[in-house]
Amino acid sequence: MENKSFYVHHSAFGAFSSFMLGKLGKGGGFVLNDVRPPKDNIFIGFKQDEKINLLPFCELDNNAEEEFTGEVDASKKEKAIKIFSEKEIQRQIGWASDTFIADKLTFSIVTPFGNIKNPLEMTQEEKKLAFAPVIFAQLTFDNRDKATDAEMIFGIEGPKRRLSITTEGTYVGAALERKYGFAAINSDEIKELSRLDILTSWANDNYQNHDLGRAPSLIFKVPKGTIKTFTIALATYQEGTITTGIDTKFYYSELFNSLEDVIAFGLQNCDYYLNLANKRDKELKESNLNEYRQFLLAHATHSYHASTQLMVNKDNLPLWIVNEGEYIMMNTFDLTVDHVFFELRFHPWTVTNSLDLFVDRYSYYDQAGLAFTHDMGVSNGFSKKEYSSYELPNLQGCFSYMTHEELLNWILTGAVYVLKTKDETWLNNNKKIFLECFESLTSRDKNCDGIMDVDSSRCENGSEITTYDSLDTSLGQARNNLYLGLKSWSAYVLLEKIFKEVGFSEHCEKAVEKALAAANKIVGQFDDKEKYIPAVFENGNTSRIIPAVEALVYPYIIGDKVSVSEDGKYGELIKKLKQHILTIMKPGICIDEVSGGWKLSSTSKNTWNSKIFLCQYVIKEILRIDFPDEENWDKVHANWQKLSCSEEGATDQVNSDTGTARGSRLYPRLVTSILWMK
Amino acid sequence: MENKSFYVHHSAFGAFSSFMLGKLGKGGGFVLNDVRPPKDNIFIGFKQDEKINLLPFCELDNNAEEEFTGEVDASKKEKAIKIFSEKEIQRQIGWASDTFIADKLTFSIVTPFGNIKNPLEMTQEEKKLAFAPVIFAQLTFDNRDKATDAEMIFGIEGPKRRLSITTEGTYVGAALERKYGFAAINSDEIKELSRLDILTSWANDNYQNHDLGRAPSLIFKVPKGTIKTFTIALATYQEGTITTGIDTKFYYSELFNSLEDVIAFGLQNCDYYLNLANKRDKELKESNLNEYRQFLLAHATHSYHASTQLMVNKDNLPLWIVNEGEYIMMNTFDLTVDHVFFELRFHPWTVTNSLDLFVDRYSYYDQAGLAFTHDMGVSNGFSKKEYSSYELPNLQGCFSYMTHEELLNWILTGAVYVLKTKDETWLNNNKKIFLECFESLTSRDKNCDGIMDVDSSRCENGSEITTYDSLDTSLGQARNNLYLGLKSWSAYVLLEKIFKEVGFSEHCEKAVEKALAAANKIVGQFDDKEKYIPAVFENGNTSRIIPAVEALVYPYIIGDKVSVSEDGKYGELIKKLKQHILTIMKPGICIDEVSGGWKLSSTSKNTWNSKIFLCQYVIKEILRIDFPDEENWDKVHANWQKLSCSEEGATDQVNSDTGTARGSRLYPRLVTSILWMK
Repeated sequence: MENKSFYVHHSAFGAFSSFMLGKLGKGGGFVLNDVRPPKDNIFIGFKQDEKINLLPFCELDNNAEEEFTGEVDASKKEKAIKIFSEKEIQRQIGWASDTFIADKLTFSIVTPFGNIKNPLEMTQEEKKLAFAPVIFAQLTFDNRDKATDAEMIFGIEGPKRRLSITTEGTYVGAALERKYGFAAINSDEIKELSRLDILTSWANDNYQNHDLGRAPSLIFKVPKGTIKTFTIALATYQEGTITTGIDTKFYYSELFNSLEDVIAFGLQNCDYYLNLANKRDKELKESNLNEYRQFLLAHATHSYHASTQLMVNKDNLPLWIVNEGEYIMMNTFDLTVDHVFFELRFHPWTVTNSLDLFVDRYSYYDQAGLAFTHDMGVSNGFSKKEYSSYELPNLQGCFSYMTHEELLNWILTGAVYVLKTKDETWLNNNKKIFLECFESLTSRDKNCDGIMDVDSSRCENGSEITTYDSLDTSLGQARNNLYLGLKSWSAYVLLEKIFKEVGFSEHCEKAVEKALAAANKIVGQFDDKEKYIPAVFENGNTSRIIPAVEALVYPYIIGDKVSVSEDGKYGELIKKLKQHILTIMKPGICIDEVSGGWKLSSTSKNTWNSKIFLCQYVIKEILRIDFPDEENWDKVHANWQKLSCSEEGATDQVNSDTGTARGSRLYPRLVTSILWMK
Repeated sequence: MENKSFYVHHSAFGAFSSFMLGKLGKGGGFVLNDVRPPKDNIFIGFKQDEKINLLPFCELDNNAEEEFTGEVDASKKEKAIKIFSEKEIQRQIGWASDTFIADKLTFSIVTPFGNIKNPLEMTQEEKKLAFAPVIFAQLTFDNRDKATDAEMIFGIEGPKRRLSITTEGTYVGAALERKYGFAAINSDEIKELSRLDILTSWANDNYQNHDLGRAPSLIFKVPKGTIKTFTIALATYQEGTITTGIDTKFYYSELFNSLEDVIAFGLQNCDYYLNLANKRDKELKESNLNEYRQFLLAHATHSYHASTQLMVNKDNLPLWIVNEGEYIMMNTFDLTVDHVFFELRFHPWTVTNSLDLFVDRYSYYDQAGLAFTHDMGVSNGFSKKEYSSYELPNLQGCFSYMTHEELLNWILTGAVYVLKTKDETWLNNNKKIFLECFESLTSRDKNCDGIMDVDSSRCENGSEITTYDSLDTSLGQARNNLYLGLKSWSAYVLLEKIFKEVGFSEHCEKAVEKALAAANKIVGQFDDKEKYIPAVFENGNTSRIIPAVEALVYPYIIGDKVSVSEDGKYGELIKKLKQHILTIMKPGICIDEVSGGWKLSSTSKNTWNSKIFLCQYVIKEILRIDFPDEENWDKVHANWQKLSCSEEGATDQVNSDTGTARGSRLYPRLVTSILWMK
């Protein structure tokens, strides 16, 4: 675990805001309604024996004073400032923390998260604890061996006002307008320092506050012979109506009146939050996952939370959004289906919240029946009813319709939710939707072989694509596609169970028929000589793809081990898929010869981490294939994130040879890695 | 008037927002709660005969699509795009407009302004007209001589959503979230176009909307043989509580519910607004000011409006803020006194609004009596009661207290307001304040020579400065300063009149005594040999300063021509000042030898445009000195703004040799140039 220099999002649940930090030599800071790293200077460090020592998150130029005076002041004392180099720093990212250690300084950013009940079933106090847009930082300095007093600093360029002014001295800290800030409980050991040139003033022991300062900071005393830890709340707040198309406010804005209110609540309850974070860190540490997987899941979770946004609509009902990383599309459905494993673990009600909105506003009818849009809009703007922001007619590739894939996503997400949670009320309310979905699905299979062969009329003269929009045809084309074929099979397998639950016995049988047809079709495509199934059953395609097995996850995850077993009803399919995987997981096919990492398709360099993680789970847990290279592969994939994508945050689409980002930066989808956790 | 490449603010009254544009080769865009130019691409131009022609406000690289697909699409048609060069463009800035002409395209930004009554005396409809945060743009294309149809475009990178979606087709345009946008009334002649790469799509006649677009634009049809003009509203909107310290909202947010609401109102009333702007343009054009002065006043007015911010407090009362340009300090008092001439012309109630808040919250008592702070806070954060964000103790220069200057500013601003408007109610409410101010002023003059000799106890071990904080001692030191001495004299002259109005006859006499003492003191400092008055009456100072005469403006402006006449009670003072001016207005003294522009102090290269304009007025109108160089000087000063400070917007502090900015960029204060208007 050598590289320590990479951005990480640090975010409260549902606040669509982050405190970003971690790429050494670059700044960071707060970002609201977005996930891209700001470039503000961050001052974290200590002063002892007339020398300032800082973590490498700031640049030292500060000519703020000259901008006022127009003169260079040569009399300023030379600043004795040292910036720690990478090799002097240790970094440890936990599931709910990110810690930097340099010399006697320990700095942690703590992002508590845990199970969150449906807000409709919460008390007011539970809601406040769950949805306060607050995270924490802790600074510790071990001065036990030293004979001189020390001070620590925490400051961000961006905030301008000191929080003691609006809190009448109860809290100290800094804020940018009413939007974000950080604070500690006031005490004799902490003071605010605001200066135009904060570091020069601190170096010169000038503690006079000047409210034109650009980085009001906190200064913490650590007397000689002591060790001290200080806790800071980092909070964001956005008032009023935020979205358009559907007018919504942040859920927390009905619980808290202001940034100051959030800060006060956070600091009053910081023990609760720190314990919660600690519990998550411990859980990951004790998970038996190797260090690379621990890192990948932790990194993914940080990015997922950065994209989450819990709103309240005009009827006072919660409205859940996960934004699509750098693209900021809202509730992209082909991400929802991948987030379902994480959400079912921590907050299952967000799954149905999205599914219901898809039914109510983001479904439509094409020539074949019910269908769902790719997303619900972009950048806080809900798109018009029945339309996504992404999809366009008359295209063959990127930006075409994903009608069939999204139809499968509603079925699979809904079925996994129901069959895992046994939420009968929701199932009862939606049984007709499942039925309509089934009918729509079958009518897209004209030749009755169980897999899609009809493009949506929404495509006009174009044709449908899959979620793998930027890969080549092997995964990009929807029609007669192996990946999507398996996903259709999986949908039929789950629909059988849904229909059984609601007593639609006739449809049970039909669903089984379709599942068998799909399985037979796919089995029939197996190339006995080369021992694989081609990615597309058209035009002599010979691509080898790992996501052939992706959809096995759905029956398995709801406990149907028979359907995915070699001895079950679909045994032949499972056997063939196992052979397929054994054939392709080789260097030059689906193992990249340069990096040694996984390549989703033998014919594309574009590989997606979220799907690698998911397929790793399927291959090991379901197909029971144990590759000896697993930990090496994990190391490669971890280094893609930590080295190649260090400036892009958690990144989904990378080049399989270099690991550099191709797209889907700062992305939530990598939480498929939650599947690794038992 | 050669240079056409400089930023201009385009702002609605009191909205603290701008649409910035004008530096050729750079972008622009909307800025909220700030005055700094954004760098968004702006697309303004036309397409005819398969060629796109654009004004130079954008860069042509657009890889938005590649960010999704990860691939470079080589099949894209080469874009046939021409960017107009500076010499192909004509530009004309009016008092309420800014127009660019290139080929057959005319593009104007229109910023209507006029007299604004006290909102407490307005109807709801009057308020909406006065405070709607909306300005306008007009595009005209003259296609009368052509045999092919043409299209025009207007678009900004930044907005993401098309306005037809939220207005159900009534308006077309684009918006960024709920914060800003532009729109036109929907018609067959206009369409929205949103694409990832807007110019390539337009070049390829691809008009299919894609709502992942980053610059949703308006496309206007101009059939062959016609000339067409289209009007666009540019609006901003900020909901909820904006400031801290004192919680306030934008006044307009109580009048309009949303950005869409503002846009609808603006477009419905656009004739009213365009007429109003036209009236202002005409007034300036017919003012007999030379072209340089017309430009300077127009430029200054644009920047002034950019800094204005009308809020409403919790008691539903208006609260007026002028922000201090790039420094964003709120209601800096030494700017208020310079804005009074402009505000008295257009909205006198804003003057008392500020003066009252100074009394209520931003006054304090030092050892000498009542005093006022330098400002009321910074960046939407009201500072704590009785304190500015700027002033610090224990300093000699920049950031020290301006106690004496601000005390004079309250007296002078208040007296000018009362004596011009005859607002007896306000005077009656404040007569005791005037009295306290007088007493405070006299107790800062220990040796009873009429001018300040005692520093405020707030300075502790420092000493007071003047508004000229970044000049040298000649203007920077408050104690025994010629500039401030004259300002004290002026305050006493006006206080006499105030006391007379309210019947404080005893104080009338005292005020005259003090005015005479000050006049005598200053006259006594006249150097008979060198024929000037030194800037500071201490330490053998020999600086020559133009602002010696600045304060003559106050008696004159309220109609007291006797006090500023050579034949009046203070005739000797006026004669000496006239001699002083005749001595110093020479190259090498107060005319810069390099540029030929005005230099406020013979000993500093730092010269301030707002004060030059004010002193030009005093010297010509009051002292009746007609310098033959006037128009040449005006040309120099205009070029400082248009050439040297072209990227800084209206700039106050420049180097007198090069005209380059030293500070106070994007500044409101240059509206002292309103004095030039009869």
